[in-house]
Amino acid sequence: MNSAAVLDLSKSPHAVVRPVPPGRVEVADGFWAERMRSMRGHGLARQFEQCEVTGRLRNFERAAGRLEGKFEGRYYNDSDVYKWLEAASYALGRAPSAELQGCMDRVIDLIRAAQRPDGYINTYFSGSQASWRYRNLTDEHELYCMGHLIQAGVAHRRSTGSDRLFEVVVRAADHICETFGPEGRPEPDGHPGIELALVELARETGNDKYLKQAVFFLDQRGSDPPHLNGLHVLQDHAPVREQRDADGHSVRLTYLAAAMADAAMDTGEAELLAASVCLWESAYLRRAYVTGGLGSRYQGEAFGADYELPNDRAYAETCAAVGGIFWNARLLAATGEARYGDWLETALYNGALVGVSPDGGAYFYANPLAADPQPTPDDQGGVHSDGAQPTIGGHQRQPWYDTACCPPNIARLLLSLPGYAYGVSAGALWVHQYLPGRVEAALPDGASITLRVVTRYPWDGDVELVVEEAPDRPVELRVRVPSWADGASLEVDGVREPVEPGSYAGIRRVWPAETAVRLRLPMDVRLVASHSRVQANRGRVAIARGPLVYCIEAADHHESNVDALVLGPDSDLQASDEPDLLGGLTTIRGSAGVAVKRESDELYSRFDGGKPEPSGSTALTAIPYFAWANRAPGGMRVWIPYVDS
Amino acid sequence: MNSAAVLDLSKSPHAVVRPVPPGRVEVADGFWAERMRSMRGHGLARQFEQCEVTGRLRNFERAAGRLEGKFEGRYYNDSDVYKWLEAASYALGRAPSAELQGCMDRVIDLIRAAQRPDGYINTYFSGSQASWRYRNLTDEHELYCMGHLIQAGVAHRRSTGSDRLFEVVVRAADHICETFGPEGRPEPDGHPGIELALVELARETGNDKYLKQAVFFLDQRGSDPPHLNGLHVLQDHAPVREQRDADGHSVRLTYLAAAMADAAMDTGEAELLAASVCLWESAYLRRAYVTGGLGSRYQGEAFGADYELPNDRAYAETCAAVGGIFWNARLLAATGEARYGDWLETALYNGALVGVSPDGGAYFYANPLAADPQPTPDDQGGVHSDGAQPTIGGHQRQPWYDTACCPPNIARLLLSLPGYAYGVSAGALWVHQYLPGRVEAALPDGASITLRVVTRYPWDGDVELVVEEAPDRPVELRVRVPSWADGASLEVDGVREPVEPGSYAGIRRVWPAETAVRLRLPMDVRLVASHSRVQANRGRVAIARGPLVYCIEAADHHESNVDALVLGPDSDLQASDEPDLLGGLTTIRGSAGVAVKRESDELYSRFDGGKPEPSGSTALTAIPYFAWANRAPGGMRVWIPYVDS
Repeated sequence: MNSAAVLDLSKSPHAVVRPVPPGRVEVADGFWAERMRSMRGHGLARQFEQCEVTGRLRNFERAAGRLEGKFEGRYYNDSDVYKWLEAASYALGRAPSAELQGCMDRVIDLIRAAQRPDGYINTYFSGSQASWRYRNLTDEHELYCMGHLIQAGVAHRRSTGSDRLFEVVVRAADHICETFGPEGRPEPDGHPGIELALVELARETGNDKYLKQAVFFLDQRGSDPPHLNGLHVLQDHAPVREQRDADGHSVRLTYLAAAMADAAMDTGEAELLAASVCLWESAYLRRAYVTGGLGSRYQGEAFGADYELPNDRAYAETCAAVGGIFWNARLLAATGEARYGDWLETALYNGALVGVSPDGGAYFYANPLAADPQPTPDDQGGVHSDGAQPTIGGHQRQPWYDTACCPPNIARLLLSLPGYAYGVSAGALWVHQYLPGRVEAALPDGASITLRVVTRYPWDGDVELVVEEAPDRPVELRVRVPSWADGASLEVDGVREPVEPGSYAGIRRVWPAETAVRLRLPMDVRLVASHSRVQANRGRVAIARGPLVYCIEAADHHESNVDALVLGPDSDLQASDEPDLLGGLTTIRGSAGVAVKRESDELYSRFDGGKPEPSGSTALTAIPYFAWANRAPGGMRVWIPYVDS
Repeated sequence: MNSAAVLDLSKSPHAVVRPVPPGRVEVADGFWAERMRSMRGHGLARQFEQCEVTGRLRNFERAAGRLEGKFEGRYYNDSDVYKWLEAASYALGRAPSAELQGCMDRVIDLIRAAQRPDGYINTYFSGSQASWRYRNLTDEHELYCMGHLIQAGVAHRRSTGSDRLFEVVVRAADHICETFGPEGRPEPDGHPGIELALVELARETGNDKYLKQAVFFLDQRGSDPPHLNGLHVLQDHAPVREQRDADGHSVRLTYLAAAMADAAMDTGEAELLAASVCLWESAYLRRAYVTGGLGSRYQGEAFGADYELPNDRAYAETCAAVGGIFWNARLLAATGEARYGDWLETALYNGALVGVSPDGGAYFYANPLAADPQPTPDDQGGVHSDGAQPTIGGHQRQPWYDTACCPPNIARLLLSLPGYAYGVSAGALWVHQYLPGRVEAALPDGASITLRVVTRYPWDGDVELVVEEAPDRPVELRVRVPSWADGASLEVDGVREPVEPGSYAGIRRVWPAETAVRLRLPMDVRLVASHSRVQANRGRVAIARGPLVYCIEAADHHESNVDALVLGPDSDLQASDEPDLLGGLTTIRGSAGVAVKRESDELYSRFDGGKPEPSGSTALTAIPYFAWANRAPGGMRVWIPYVDS
């Protein structure tokens, strides 16, 4: 029960840091507890409602022969139901809820009834469309959907101990293993996902065949002749072990590369891990938004070239930030390197969290870093145009999408979040993320260590880590010091320990009960600059504080267009706690220049020779990026011009 | 013969300025004569060759029953053959060529044989696919293709006097009028083009039914319920008379809005003209590149929002610049306003001309305003991915494209160019564009006026306009003074006439033979700034001289990455004639700062507080934008950072 809701590496021979199961993690009141509560209550209820009214559940009723009529919606809609179930399982694993349990049981009954006798399940390819099964793996997402089923079933079993969904999962997975493989059909799914699911199923069942099947699917990409038309957008242009650039559909790449690292922790294939690391370096060192968002292009929902990071037309799908968190979590477990924990944190507090409203019930699909208030027409030229909102204007949160991958994705992330906070290795407890509360971790040798964490993080940088109980021998406490934390300090019993931002600080010692470690992460307001090759950000800076990226929003700047605001050496930016704003935020206040409104309204005119001088100054308020678009509609900017006047 | 190859407004009651037929315009040696010669010779020959080898001509043979096998290529490929014929007709109208004539006759024979007895013609919807005819007007471009056939037939008849192609055209047009209309099928074509064609066919035949049919098609957009799914990208979201923003596919919008202005000159419908003007203001005052390129998005090949003008990911399809020229020419004829002549000139010398190599045989489809040399993967996520080259790197000219709309489009523009240079109105000769040579224009009352133009434009701003012969009564000479020409002067017989940039200067007088008018357009090197809302160009300037926009290219800057070059007050930019460079160019030379290469290679880092100071200086050479990508591959920038250090 509650063993390892997300990633159970307890028996993975090549893992370096094994996650502490979320059932061992208490989350005290604070930033994340609040957000988990909203999602568990209002969020899951609204999502379930949407699954009902949009026909996602009716599709299962039809496939089960309990309802007449045609399939409703898109052919991959089953996956939303599975992701909701996964999220609900995590919620149920943390606290009972008869209401939630009732909804889940109803859905699980439907799934059981909809599964074909041979284990196949997809409600689109049912009834008169049953013969279309597997006709087009490139586009039709059947294995992707079953991958989400498997993840839901594993989560459900781990959280509840019940096998009712897990039985379906094993039948579906066995069907897949019988159908695809060296002796069977060779194609991978155009949309990865099944690979991650099968790796975890192998861990849950102890049956290696699922791991082999996952590696088989991974290695079917880039074959000659190709199975997926050799398309870059489907990561089919080269074998995954030889891929070096994060190209193509960004969500798909995160799922694919996460599975590569994941499988490597069980198979020990250094080549698979190395290729995942190489793709990570391409994605995060050259192609990621400062928010941890991924995907620069609406077209193909794809990564762009190196340093191609437009702000207004950033795609940065919520699912890509979430997929990036899955990927970083696996690379962190596989290597123990702090850079993965750093980007996980960045994506968590910014690029992923922005995808959901404070009440858990409204979502973003694309996440631009600049928006203008004008309503502009939707643009039907590409995929997922319903959810993509491919305009720079009028970008608003929505209660649901026709392609609704993002809402249940952010739900399953938030409700399993405690599983990302801690890890263990031989004789060491790792603190990856700072959540107030308590962890009772089992070290690999079975010894127990209990740590209490007291902090107002991310609003405050003081983190008190109190070892309540520990074995009576030296244990190392490894604490991630984020790369942004210049000047951080760590103190045990009044003694300073050396720290280096961007790495884990390790303290190995015997821990008498109630030994307190004090970590101080400086929460000064930082200005961030981009690599000079990021054209969109030349001459601009972003405001950050701790792990949070900030933005300026029209709702706080009624006098001036946010586009006219300019920072400079006199901006005097200061953090300010605002307990009544959007459930409590720390804003950043200061003064901004207001760029001269050119007399001419011309699109192009003769350059007047000088830089745009601020014409006056005004009060500036920046709010965390994750919090934007929860008040009145209006413009927003993350990157703000900086003029050194 | 040679009457009005492009736009015959001689009988259009509501035209303000009627184009002088290109047959009345001699083009002396110089900038355009050279380019027309390349296109007429090498360019048309290579394009014909491509039509042969890619199966475009074989498709006609198959439709004619002379060849077995399946249709090759894309369903709209007939249009390339028609556009080639249109271009070849203009060429033949200017000078005989047995070889060209032979190719054309062969193609025309094939077209005659491929046409169905009822007048329908499309080689894709032939043979066993004949029953698919008109099954999907939204996507399948049949009326679009027939529109290009009609334009070709009109051009062929006007240039050669032959009816061999024109007979096909009339049959096709009659078939369309019988099939579509208030009594027939109601849909317009998803890709406009038929409307422009039918308006001109009405002029050529004197038969009003084609004009009515054109207006019918125009007004079918935006109907309720919609014919084209109400899509913005197809300009079907509102009736065209009510559309206010240049939205959707940019080439399609230019053809559509051009037809609105065109039809209005014959029908007198002020509402149609006003809507076209309103769309033009949206397109050119808020959504156009400084090059006259249109289309900010790869996705949907579409316009962006106001001021959304990315440089590296500019789509700016060559066809959109060409379509913009057709549109500006019609608005200029309909209103006599100089702003349309100005943008026509900008698009002609920059956004359109960049689409073809100096030898006429290699082309661009998309036209970014910034490119990096890295080869990046092609991206199959959207339409026309073959031609679109949707990456910022490795942007190279191609001999042809699977979707080959651009090559014959630039050919038909260049070979009909003299038709865009002059116009007449009651008692007035208008000089829209400066081509060295001679025009013998018939004024509306039949009187003749002959003007000799001597100039090295665009390299030199001195334009001598000599009235060789004129009626023995006052005639007005109206000369466009471009909006960029601050300080321009105009002199007749030593007397200065008032001029205002951005308008036509009018001189009304009796013109004794050989009266010389001297127009001096200052050819100082200008720096151009963008509206502050163009995020991509904040802190940057473009170099321009006369009508030409310049760029910096790697081939001239071996020491430094073009991305590192920075302009400033000391750049001392000077024009320099380079007769041996790419067939003779005026380059602009000066010095540039070289931006500090940040020590850190990080994507994001703590802002160091100051502006990027140039670390040294280097020689800078800018070449006209149209001339880039004709030497070694490498980076290119139009917009260059400007630092006022």
